[in-house]
Amino acid sequence: MTDAPPSPRSDYDRAITLRPTTTPGRYAAEFSDQWLIGSAVNGGLVMALATTALATRIGEVGGHLDPFAFSGYFLTASQPGDVVVDTEVLRSGRTLTTGQVSVSQPGRGGIPVERMRALVSLGDLAASAVPIRAQAPPPMPPPEDCVSSSEQRPPGLKASALLDRLDLRLDPATAGWAVGRPSGRGEIRAWLRLADGREPDPTLLLLALDGLPPVAFDLGIQGWAPTLEFTAHVRARPAPGWLQLRVTSENLSGGLMEEDAVVWDSTGRLVAQSRQLCGVRVPDGYTVPG
Amino acid sequence: MTDAPPSPRSDYDRAITLRPTTTPGRYAAEFSDQWLIGSAVNGGLVMALATTALATRIGEVGGHLDPFAFSGYFLTASQPGDVVVDTEVLRSGRTLTTGQVSVSQPGRGGIPVERMRALVSLGDLAASAVPIRAQAPPPMPPPEDCVSSSEQRPPGLKASALLDRLDLRLDPATAGWAVGRPSGRGEIRAWLRLADGREPDPTLLLLALDGLPPVAFDLGIQGWAPTLEFTAHVRARPAPGWLQLRVTSENLSGGLMEEDAVVWDSTGRLVAQSRQLCGVRVPDGYTVPG
Repeated sequence: MTDAPPSPRSDYDRAITLRPTTTPGRYAAEFSDQWLIGSAVNGGLVMALATTALATRIGEVGGHLDPFAFSGYFLTASQPGDVVVDTEVLRSGRTLTTGQVSVSQPGRGGIPVERMRALVSLGDLAASAVPIRAQAPPPMPPPEDCVSSSEQRPPGLKASALLDRLDLRLDPATAGWAVGRPSGRGEIRAWLRLADGREPDPTLLLLALDGLPPVAFDLGIQGWAPTLEFTAHVRARPAPGWLQLRVTSENLSGGLMEEDAVVWDSTGRLVAQSRQLCGVRVPDGYTVPG
Repeated sequence: MTDAPPSPRSDYDRAITLRPTTTPGRYAAEFSDQWLIGSAVNGGLVMALATTALATRIGEVGGHLDPFAFSGYFLTASQPGDVVVDTEVLRSGRTLTTGQVSVSQPGRGGIPVERMRALVSLGDLAASAVPIRAQAPPPMPPPEDCVSSSEQRPPGLKASALLDRLDLRLDPATAGWAVGRPSGRGEIRAWLRLADGREPDPTLLLLALDGLPPVAFDLGIQGWAPTLEFTAHVRARPAPGWLQLRVTSENLSGGLMEEDAVVWDSTGRLVAQSRQLCGVRVPDGYTVPG
């Protein structure tokens, strides 16, 4: 926060801007309606804000600033309005600093309602060497030959403000669901960058990992897929330019599915991966298409 | 805990036995030297103890008792001796209860040192329906045709007490590393059950997910692979009998690798999956074998 310009020009930087409070480790922020997906603020933005708050806190006391591992448990849906972020440093070691973050908003009568609780380990990604083993990115047509989400809005997400913040280009090979032909494989691939040109950094990767439409769409399951738990590993600083993403799922039972995301940067380097457990409303008599 | 017999006959049940304390939400326990792996208490046991404590707490106040999602951040290595487990219920909803757990042990001068902090969501796995989509277990020879870890100890783990608690049978196709011929693919498959015949339950799956040798061994990298972060999703109650496991890794860089584990029960049903981020000490001049 201390390095942020007084008036950030990027929507994202404005959204993760924190104000100090008189309580140690507590920061204030605001969720705007510019990051809504459906009727809730995008979980990726909540994670990026939480990580920024913890890094700010650690910066004040000395420690590591790049997210290495992030696990967030989503308790209630975030809404536009005032936000309070409470941070606690649990352990500061030689290579890693681990802390806890709680994001809350005032509820009825001003009583705080917790939105998300997270554990985060931070380190220094500048020290991350050339990878010894790494998943290669899947072959995909270039962004200009992909399906822009500004032209082809996912069904039921016509009014999503989040999609105006992102420049999202779906691989046509995994975009059939957008025109009523889900593949049933459970895979969506896309290019992603911020619409205002703001370049990616390690914390922004948390937003990217949660930035694609629910992979349930490719199984022919519409509707909201709320995240219960989201864990991300950031493995390298991303180079400027497009991010390449793939989300997949292999297991659907009991109204829950895992969703695995991988992000590569514009050089083809794997920079982050995540898994989330999300809820899905499976229609009566549903069978997997394809 | 309230349902536990006064003198559990299983090593595992003894190891996760909790005593109430006068502090609300706080339980006392003891780590024995029977669960050591190298010089530390096995992380899987720490996770099972933490989950048992939170379920006990939730049982007292009313709520869900089966782990659905578990994320633990390991701060320091657990040692044989007294343990304190502090629990906090964050939110109790219709289908999920989410809480936080802290496991600590007295350090120098009796000052508590935190071993692990975890976030856990619990629900009712009895409600989990027949899976709609699920990863099938890999083809493997039956346990009697696999390599028993009591005969073939992994190099450097000759004196591990943990291996005496487990009946671990390695698939010969992924056990070359145990005789100096790592495949370099980064995959280990095995059958697992408790040596004393104690049948699996949802919480024990956390122990199972962390029960195999580090997958780094199959990359020819010896030594301790400390877990920084471990997230598990339990998807179904396991049937009695052998558990079938596969651990894999695809990304190794900056001294860190992810390790993905999947567990199927004796009926071939996927019951849990996990991903951890662990540290590895890559030797100078290392190249991937195979």
